[in-house]
Amino acid sequence: MTTRTSTVITHIGTLVTNDGDAAGGSPGDPLGVVEDAAVVIEGDRVVWVGAAGKEPATDARYDAGGRALLPGFVDSHSHLVFAGDRTQEFHARMSGRPYSAGGIRTTVAATRAATDAELSANVARYLGEALRQGTTTLETKSGYGLTTHDEARSLRIAGEHTDEVTYLGAHVVAPEFADDPAAYVELVTGEMLDACAPHARWIDVFCERGAFDGDQARAVLSAGAARGLIPRVHANQLSHGPGVRLAVELDAASADHCTHLTDADVDALASAPATVATLLPGAEFSTRAVYPDARRLLDAGATVALSTDCNPGSSFTSSMAFCVAVAVRDMGMTPDEAVYAATYGGARALRRTDIGRISPGARADLHLLDAPSHVHLAYRPGVPLTAAVWRGGLLLDGQAAAQP
Amino acid sequence: MTTRTSTVITHIGTLVTNDGDAAGGSPGDPLGVVEDAAVVIEGDRVVWVGAAGKEPATDARYDAGGRALLPGFVDSHSHLVFAGDRTQEFHARMSGRPYSAGGIRTTVAATRAATDAELSANVARYLGEALRQGTTTLETKSGYGLTTHDEARSLRIAGEHTDEVTYLGAHVVAPEFADDPAAYVELVTGEMLDACAPHARWIDVFCERGAFDGDQARAVLSAGAARGLIPRVHANQLSHGPGVRLAVELDAASADHCTHLTDADVDALASAPATVATLLPGAEFSTRAVYPDARRLLDAGATVALSTDCNPGSSFTSSMAFCVAVAVRDMGMTPDEAVYAATYGGARALRRTDIGRISPGARADLHLLDAPSHVHLAYRPGVPLTAAVWRGGLLLDGQAAAQP
Repeated sequence: MTTRTSTVITHIGTLVTNDGDAAGGSPGDPLGVVEDAAVVIEGDRVVWVGAAGKEPATDARYDAGGRALLPGFVDSHSHLVFAGDRTQEFHARMSGRPYSAGGIRTTVAATRAATDAELSANVARYLGEALRQGTTTLETKSGYGLTTHDEARSLRIAGEHTDEVTYLGAHVVAPEFADDPAAYVELVTGEMLDACAPHARWIDVFCERGAFDGDQARAVLSAGAARGLIPRVHANQLSHGPGVRLAVELDAASADHCTHLTDADVDALASAPATVATLLPGAEFSTRAVYPDARRLLDAGATVALSTDCNPGSSFTSSMAFCVAVAVRDMGMTPDEAVYAATYGGARALRRTDIGRISPGARADLHLLDAPSHVHLAYRPGVPLTAAVWRGGLLLDGQAAAQP
Repeated sequence: MTTRTSTVITHIGTLVTNDGDAAGGSPGDPLGVVEDAAVVIEGDRVVWVGAAGKEPATDARYDAGGRALLPGFVDSHSHLVFAGDRTQEFHARMSGRPYSAGGIRTTVAATRAATDAELSANVARYLGEALRQGTTTLETKSGYGLTTHDEARSLRIAGEHTDEVTYLGAHVVAPEFADDPAAYVELVTGEMLDACAPHARWIDVFCERGAFDGDQARAVLSAGAARGLIPRVHANQLSHGPGVRLAVELDAASADHCTHLTDADVDALASAPATVATLLPGAEFSTRAVYPDARRLLDAGATVALSTDCNPGSSFTSSMAFCVAVAVRDMGMTPDEAVYAATYGGARALRRTDIGRISPGARADLHLLDAPSHVHLAYRPGVPLTAAVWRGGLLLDGQAAAQP
């Protein structure tokens, strides 16, 4: 019989459970904020949440020092299997200088040229960076390989680091198929899919002018679904288009970006709570683009998630806290809504109920802030506020954790 | 005779010197970027900068691991002598909920009620937080006391932590003088000034509708100047007004905020390079206000600094990196200009030539990034990139410093 150590976390300033039914939580408050709470974890699970002092006996005790405890961030959209550098491209763009950027092709070439070990080290580096900032679940995608070999190895490498792996052979048409996009769609839905499906949970497509149109996107997602992959869609990022409605029609788990929406798009998302509108403010921040209107989506009743889109071209941030702050400042979200979207919203976009919340049975993925409340994620923009992180019950203790 | 250890920092990815004449630097590049450089520090000073491999013999060696080395940030505008909390006010404002906020009066009441030890611990906390993010010089102000006793002790406490202390008795009219602002100006320029002048280097005034008009601001700054304090001005933050032109007229070291400027204001700043336009994007971020137009000021030839304005009411960030990222995204600055403004720009706003640059004779205030270039401060928004910090030659080694 395995010994499972139990630990009570006490002296929590504000506990965000994302469980409206949490003991002591106010009804109608989706964050399920509990004051004067304690949390007991055992093994990799939360086993008890309730009023401090009422907890069952445990093996160990952790004093949160009056600081806020939240579910770990769930970052449901990133592109970490890449090699190479786009610093000069970013530098030129933000300096108003012309630059003959290869754009995504630069990253594709560098990724193809990289060894497995280099790609794996890169994923590990940014996943570790995200973890130290409170991200305990992170989805990541292929999409810089664009050959059967390179897409399949991208997914295999991603799978060494996370369970949430997405096949994005349909990121852009591979350069070799520039003159024959239909043949590339055939590859993505045929031989490449055969090689990739065993390594992925999700299938994604960039449905956008210059990438894949509605018919192509439907072909890609339907082929993936036939192989057991669940659809998600890069939808309506740069312009209006069919992506969002296609996502809803195919019961995709997520329509990502949602920057340019018609009323019909918003209605579609509102009528399909299982298709989450995943907003990625890092992309608009880093390209000086207009932000998606989270307020409009929330008011309509859509389910909203926040994610980083971490990638070297258009959004090279791994900071979910930064996304929360920008969403509050520029996208009409309240601090409560943004924190919920960055935790349980992300879990919904990954169709998970075991993460993104602190309630009995959930994974012990916890984020202790060096601040008394979750509001500080927006109130203190840019400040590293992660004091400690538990992932699956294991404590990653930051420098700040020693400073209650 | 004191032993002074010398250390060479080698294997630097990109060295930002802010010294256009630096060995190997390109002429006309204010950042004075040097590739393949080494830096030698001895005691609290930089003693040598040049090509790697050409450095003199030293006692010790630090491998920068290909990462970027910059001057420490110079944060020339903060309000850290405060007590109390304004989280609920921020939460309500960003949630669109009415809230009968006391605003600055809340902080004044809490600051007056706090003990010296509490105020000192608060300054130490945020100064330490800033240092861990690469800020090696930080100005801070009084302004939440508004009595002779509380302003003087605020300055004395600030002076325990930093040399750059600013008397801001003229932050707002003290509540006790609401019906007689003239009497408050008399106090600020009389008895309060007598008590405060020995503890400060600078005098500041909030020149704005609802605070102090041009004549009052002139009286405050002139009285301070007569006591040897150098003026700086909270100018043109919320509306057009006389602040900027007054700052230039009185040879103030800095006009801070500069959000609402006429062409005449811009011309005045351009003609007075010793009066720095200090821009504080955290304030506009946290109040959803329009950003100052840094591009207009730079194109006109004004000297620009970036600073946090760290305070619990309108800008509760201590992150200079965040200010750099927002300045690039929203204020028309290039990454080079923003990094320069956050380092040597701040030094100019404090009339210092010994900080904000890496050149022989300068203080050894150095900031090692967990990134190969300074551009990453804008390219990777929100990500904690500080790998190590030297302040006066002393190494504060972060967790990330062990990960070259």
